[in-house]
Amino acid sequence: MKAIFITLEGPDGSGKTTTMQLLYEKMKKSGIPFIKTREPGGSPISEKVREIVLGIGNEEMDPRTEALLIAGARRQHVVETIRPALAAGKTVLCDRFIDSSLAYQGAGRGIGIDEVLEINLFAVEETLPDVTYYLDVPAEIGLARIAANKGREVNRLDKEDVTFHQQVQTGYEELLKRFSARFVRVDATQTPDQITDQILADILKRVAES
Amino acid sequence: MKAIFITLEGPDGSGKTTTMQLLYEKMKKSGIPFIKTREPGGSPISEKVREIVLGIGNEEMDPRTEALLIAGARRQHVVETIRPALAAGKTVLCDRFIDSSLAYQGAGRGIGIDEVLEINLFAVEETLPDVTYYLDVPAEIGLARIAANKGREVNRLDKEDVTFHQQVQTGYEELLKRFSARFVRVDATQTPDQITDQILADILKRVAES
Repeated sequence: MKAIFITLEGPDGSGKTTTMQLLYEKMKKSGIPFIKTREPGGSPISEKVREIVLGIGNEEMDPRTEALLIAGARRQHVVETIRPALAAGKTVLCDRFIDSSLAYQGAGRGIGIDEVLEINLFAVEETLPDVTYYLDVPAEIGLARIAANKGREVNRLDKEDVTFHQQVQTGYEELLKRFSARFVRVDATQTPDQITDQILADILKRVAES
Repeated sequence: MKAIFITLEGPDGSGKTTTMQLLYEKMKKSGIPFIKTREPGGSPISEKVREIVLGIGNEEMDPRTEALLIAGARRQHVVETIRPALAAGKTVLCDRFIDSSLAYQGAGRGIGIDEVLEINLFAVEETLPDVTYYLDVPAEIGLARIAANKGREVNRLDKEDVTFHQQVQTGYEELLKRFSARFVRVDATQTPDQITDQILADILKRVAES
């Protein structure tokens, strides 16, 4: 059994939060040594940066500022949290990572995937996910879920229009093609149990094989 | 008369703070429309990032994190402060800019000037200084001034050893060669009045010519 670096990605409304929680519970029961973490954040300095990036009141933030600050938080997360966990033999389960920047800032905000990739490779160097589970949901279902789910925490990035969310989704589709070796598409219209069972089975296979 | 973008650079102990204050007073008397600003900082979001970067207690910050956060703060400073001032016909006098990142993070911390330049060009795009005054001081004088000046504000970046400061200085020398078209070397062993008179005369000439 070897430690692997797993990321979970998906547009808003893909059910990522629910999936993450349920997957965490199932992984605990599976006996795999692992840590759960998230972005932006995941280390004390990164959480301070998260407050600036997601803070209501910082609406005047430029897209390139946002991309650089998130990349900075990511670097610290990699150095302080992800690399030490992997080195200690613990699998890392991370809610959002480099692909969120490529989809949200690169495609969604229109900076360009290549440009955002460049600053992120400066940040992570060789530390890229071994596998990325992409929660795939049709745009109309995702947007309907966002509209229906009034109770969830609202942050600055949620205050975006439909066009933005569509560009994010198109960005993710581009990433699935580019990084097909590490991306696994998961049908997110299934029930939470079906989704997490499918992901867990794949994780167990990879951890055993590696 | 045209607005120009001026930056002031120099290693610790070069007398940059004193020069900046005196130059500001003399420029006010000169009648040139201008703003004075500084990095890291210079806009509300950038000042929040400054607090994280310079904060005592964030000593575990990785050099690449530092470089990315400063580049993010710089982007916001460019968009919110520098570009609007220049567009309004105001000359910009800025205490540290892109070259500080190249010298401190690129050379001083050993990331490499080219790598740090790349993320900074993502940040500033075409907004580069028209002229950069470099306060040149022999390493031994600079270090002696830092040691003597116990009363100054101490931040995280000041807690570095002699080797670091020497690498910063070597980095600046490299930048003077690379960007010789915009760099002006100023002998910082002169008196503050001599230094600022020399810089002001050059500024007046450039503002009139442009």
